[in-house]
Amino acid sequence: MTEMQAVAKLQAAPGMELVQSPVPAPGPRDVLIKVKATSICGTDVHIYKWDRWSQGRIKPPLIVGHEFTGEIVAVGEQVRPNEPGVGDFVSAESHIVCGVCQQCRLGLAHICPNTRIIGVDIDGCYAEYVAIPVENAWKNPADMPVAVASLQENFGNAVHTVATTDVRGKTVLITGCGPAGLMSIPVARAFGAEIIIVSDLSPYRLELARKVGADLAVNPAEEDLFQRAQDAVRGKGFDVLLEMSGAPQALVQGLRLLKPGGAASLLGLAPGTLTDFDLNNLVIMKGVTMYGVAGRRMWETWYQMRALLASGAVDLRPIITHEFPLNRWQEAMEIMASGNSGKIVMYPNM
Amino acid sequence: MTEMQAVAKLQAAPGMELVQSPVPAPGPRDVLIKVKATSICGTDVHIYKWDRWSQGRIKPPLIVGHEFTGEIVAVGEQVRPNEPGVGDFVSAESHIVCGVCQQCRLGLAHICPNTRIIGVDIDGCYAEYVAIPVENAWKNPADMPVAVASLQENFGNAVHTVATTDVRGKTVLITGCGPAGLMSIPVARAFGAEIIIVSDLSPYRLELARKVGADLAVNPAEEDLFQRAQDAVRGKGFDVLLEMSGAPQALVQGLRLLKPGGAASLLGLAPGTLTDFDLNNLVIMKGVTMYGVAGRRMWETWYQMRALLASGAVDLRPIITHEFPLNRWQEAMEIMASGNSGKIVMYPNM
Amino acid sequence: MTEMQAVAKLQAAPGMELVQSPVPAPGPRDVLIKVKATSICGTDVHIYKWDRWSQGRIKPPLIVGHEFTGEIVAVGEQVRPNEPGVGDFVSAESHIVCGVCQQCRLGLAHICPNTRIIGVDIDGCYAEYVAIPVENAWKNPADMPVAVASLQENFGNAVHTVATTDVRGKTVLITGCGPAGLMSIPVARAFGAEIIIVSDLSPYRLELARKVGADLAVNPAEEDLFQRAQDAVRGKGFDVLLEMSGAPQALVQGLRLLKPGGAASLLGLAPGTLTDFDLNNLVIMKGVTMYGVAGRRMWETWYQMRALLASGAVDLRPIITHEFPLNRWQEAMEIMASGNSGKIVMYPNM
Amino acid sequence: MTEMQAVAKLQAAPGMELVQSPVPAPGPRDVLIKVKATSICGTDVHIYKWDRWSQGRIKPPLIVGHEFTGEIVAVGEQVRPNEPGVGDFVSAESHIVCGVCQQCRLGLAHICPNTRIIGVDIDGCYAEYVAIPVENAWKNPADMPVAVASLQENFGNAVHTVATTDVRGKTVLITGCGPAGLMSIPVARAFGAEIIIVSDLSPYRLELARKVGADLAVNPAEEDLFQRAQDAVRGKGFDVLLEMSGAPQALVQGLRLLKPGGAASLLGLAPGTLTDFDLNNLVIMKGVTMYGVAGRRMWETWYQMRALLASGAVDLRPIITHEFPLNRWQEAMEIMASGNSGKIVMYPNM
Repeated sequence: MTEMQAVAKLQAAPGMELVQSPVPAPGPRDVLIKVKATSICGTDVHIYKWDRWSQGRIKPPLIVGHEFTGEIVAVGEQVRPNEPGVGDFVSAESHIVCGVCQQCRLGLAHICPNTRIIGVDIDGCYAEYVAIPVENAWKNPADMPVAVASLQENFGNAVHTVATTDVRGKTVLITGCGPAGLMSIPVARAFGAEIIIVSDLSPYRLELARKVGADLAVNPAEEDLFQRAQDAVRGKGFDVLLEMSGAPQALVQGLRLLKPGGAASLLGLAPGTLTDFDLNNLVIMKGVTMYGVAGRRMWETWYQMRALLASGAVDLRPIITHEFPLNRWQEAMEIMASGNSGKIVMYPNM
Repeated sequence: MTEMQAVAKLQAAPGMELVQSPVPAPGPRDVLIKVKATSICGTDVHIYKWDRWSQGRIKPPLIVGHEFTGEIVAVGEQVRPNEPGVGDFVSAESHIVCGVCQQCRLGLAHICPNTRIIGVDIDGCYAEYVAIPVENAWKNPADMPVAVASLQENFGNAVHTVATTDVRGKTVLITGCGPAGLMSIPVARAFGAEIIIVSDLSPYRLELARKVGADLAVNPAEEDLFQRAQDAVRGKGFDVLLEMSGAPQALVQGLRLLKPGGAASLLGLAPGTLTDFDLNNLVIMKGVTMYGVAGRRMWETWYQMRALLASGAVDLRPIITHEFPLNRWQEAMEIMASGNSGKIVMYPNM
Repeated sequence: MTEMQAVAKLQAAPGMELVQSPVPAPGPRDVLIKVKATSICGTDVHIYKWDRWSQGRIKPPLIVGHEFTGEIVAVGEQVRPNEPGVGDFVSAESHIVCGVCQQCRLGLAHICPNTRIIGVDIDGCYAEYVAIPVENAWKNPADMPVAVASLQENFGNAVHTVATTDVRGKTVLITGCGPAGLMSIPVARAFGAEIIIVSDLSPYRLELARKVGADLAVNPAEEDLFQRAQDAVRGKGFDVLLEMSGAPQALVQGLRLLKPGGAASLLGLAPGTLTDFDLNNLVIMKGVTMYGVAGRRMWETWYQMRALLASGAVDLRPIITHEFPLNRWQEAMEIMASGNSGKIVMYPNM
Repeated sequence: MTEMQAVAKLQAAPGMELVQSPVPAPGPRDVLIKVKATSICGTDVHIYKWDRWSQGRIKPPLIVGHEFTGEIVAVGEQVRPNEPGVGDFVSAESHIVCGVCQQCRLGLAHICPNTRIIGVDIDGCYAEYVAIPVENAWKNPADMPVAVASLQENFGNAVHTVATTDVRGKTVLITGCGPAGLMSIPVARAFGAEIIIVSDLSPYRLELARKVGADLAVNPAEEDLFQRAQDAVRGKGFDVLLEMSGAPQALVQGLRLLKPGGAASLLGLAPGTLTDFDLNNLVIMKGVTMYGVAGRRMWETWYQMRALLASGAVDLRPIITHEFPLNRWQEAMEIMASGNSGKIVMYPNM
């Protein structure tokens, strides 16, 4: 088998295409993976729509996609016996890091300044096969459903965001119920949060949020978030803010709702710079700690994910709202772009 | 009402007695509490039996008991309006601390070297009324069951022990299923433990442990704890040890089962000194961290307790195995001493 | 002795006045202190100039000043024997906290929402005598120079800011060389910083910064801070930013200079809100942690201060540039307002 | 050049020999290093004397030695351009780790259970040349003296031990003034310790300890360590214990001298198991935290070492008491074994 089906960006313009492409040959330290499931990330939608970030970063032609799981079917000649090998059921860390910079050497590989990303900087996983460095392959338990295994890259953002703070016995406000926000709800619960209040502008997503365990899901377009949230905690404010939306108003509202000494983990990226941001009152004088969160800890987050899924403490299946064969990628992408979905999983080898 | 019923140690000898005693008059910074429920601690059994520790510490006559809840019925003249007051439903931190030593000033009041303990150094709560410093009164939510509210002093030991380490996504071994060990099971679960294995010599307690959520409960007198525990984690060892028994064999076995880099929180007190303790291999070369745990963090542990109970993440009711009016204290004490019980709650004003 | 000299704000308008005022009578939990030395804080200058913050907060008539040291000459009737007493040489924590809120109960009293401040909300220390709660009195070693003892409230801001992060072996950028910024230089050195680069717009302060140990002191009005700072660390960026200026440009430049995974402790308050703040690139995607710093940890920071001064690791004397008797307060205030000073100490009982 | 001089263990018996040996050929991921300096570790003395540990671990013939520095003169074909290369001045981390186990993946490579050690499990550096994995080579600044560069492996033990705890403004007791103990003195000072008291049985080492900055150096064979140490801290006990001797009496005395809530970092290995160890009173009821320390953090400790040496905060030269050409290795070994030395450096290419 030398040819495969793949979804690729062929031109520096909106859109993608279903193409026939050669099955990639793994390099000496790579593994070749037969893709069992791949899921759509917001980044993929940005690339599809060809937004400003994409225009600056993506160099077509490129096979897109970075969330996936599959089976290793071949390995390069320098892959060692104690590393993942043929037959292993793996998911992928999408960040390919240099391993030699200070960040990598200090256990901060998730913010390695030399990071290249699968499906962004090199060919990705919207395809029947994908080749990645063996260091990026993470072995899954045999009984993990492939749809769930595919989500882990994104699930890792949620787990990393929650794990950055201490939520044990804490009141937690989550602003933003896109996939990462939704997944952070059961994670916060599993790690000991007492009360979890969430906000989003989409009724569809708020409904999903309730389904996966939010104590209260507020639409700030319809209700006074500050008041509803305060009522839910008897006016005492929140210990922890997980900002998963990137909306500046959500950030400001969230910080206002924090107690003195509270913690804010920020994953959501704003559409631009902040204007009129009251750092004095929202952060400094309140003694707040803010954590910028990027990617997933390698490999602490992956161990946490495996445990959360294996113990049943987190069930990601309710968050998977749509499934398609890969050749219906466009339908899938449009639904993802609409906001009326949780995670969408595609199957390239169906 | 000037007289009350109480259970007191009258002589420096085994036993206790039910006595009529004056209702205590609160000092200027004290509150007088009408006791709704009081629970039996292992320490109370030691005092009852008059063990060596008791002989060195207890000065009869003394009203015994330090775990309780009740309603404030009077306050001293220096109690301020923003402090707990008449009508409040409170539990008590049993450690009366000095407030001025370095430990107190650094947020380590639970190990204040000037600590006096209710029911040990001053009259306690096996009585219809008890007077304690207002600083030691902790307000409970109105809907907390009194039996549960009474347990919090001891529950705090369990919460403190678990909270000292990071159990999120971790494999946890709990050696010892006395009341504190039992209570630590749902706490470890609530704070994110993946797998919880426990050990005890009492079948009664192992059964309770299973009931409150242990994944596996092993009796080392009947089975090979090391092997059973390793099998449960596929030979990978444990991330966290919670030593709640004080048995030297349990400590050693627990440390052997820890992974390199693991953490051990030690609450159980051994009957004497350790002999033949292999610190090199069990702790140093494995890079293990050991935490000595005493009392409860004031007041971080109490906030965590309130949250765990309010959210329903922890339900202590299955651990309450017996309830008595106070005047049946001797029957209660004998059952507690037998080991065939969880927590025992007594009601002085029934 | 019933009357004393004091510097007070008599009217809601710019200026202050030297007045005769009754020696305060200590309340039941207060100590009366004969002031040996008092130092000027930037806040005092704000009150003097009657800026917007002062107009909203200060209620004349009010004796100003909150940084001081002195000897206890009387105590209220409820002060206990184990607390500071007559004859003790003390400095003062200026934050009078409630002791019962969640922050106070969790060891975060420095951000107690019920805080009242000496010399801001109640009469202060620009006077021969001042009465403060006994909880706010901190005993000094007998051999501490009074000028140094007076500075500790402000020194505590610097120590708290540095101590919030880990500077051991780290490269540290300090933006702002006002008194707190200056004091943070020897603290960062004492706690293990490898390289300390500072910036300020005042040549006077940059010179002081060099004197107390900065490896490089840069004036961004004259040189390219980014380039000079990067050259000093061979282009590798900084591990830690201590933002002590409140200047938005300094904050942004400092965050740009941070490595991925760096830490920023923020003490300086901006004149208003931030506009055009690139949270995505400066904080989130770099995985930066930002700490808002207010006041001093009670009492961890005070223990750290005592140790730093006692060991000689920090010498604050070079930072004291001017000394006056209290009745020359106006001259002192004008020099402080000019920016051409380090700390200024005044002596009320000279 | 194909032959070289080396010091090797040829037989399973006491002693070593100076041999001619082939220059090693680097494997595909190795670098070949021309050794500039190598220092003697206590472990080397154990191997020389053929103690029980050596008998169980060492498989002759073996070139001994694991502390060294030198210049890379050749690299294997799979060494990448962004890794250390020919001409680089490097020291070596002696732990060769697997890179794939949980410890390695969690940033705990220093306790990788699959560790092999240079000069213990594979040929070492008492030789003109040594081949090691490129991952173990650490680039030094060009101006670092070779004698100092050679010490880093052992210096790392000291830095790791100190860095495990927070010594900022703390009182520190160091039991044991062998090389690692001696090196920990300036490290504790550089990281902010207020008072540093040390103990050892050797007058020679106590004198060295004073030279590198101990505030008080006590010989427990001649003086009452407990009393002298307490006097030095006005009876208040110590915040931190660094146990560097392995002597059980030192451990117990050190723990007795700790404050409630203190921290103990343990590097010294006892000659056997502990007997009569009072865990209750020394650790549990005092709320003490004990850290087992092994090896060096990869690579946090190395960054800290580089910074401490580059800034001049730590000067290791006074600790180097003897220097020899490699062919006088036996004289060097005997002096090291006598205890009357600090570090001893040997030069193979002199």
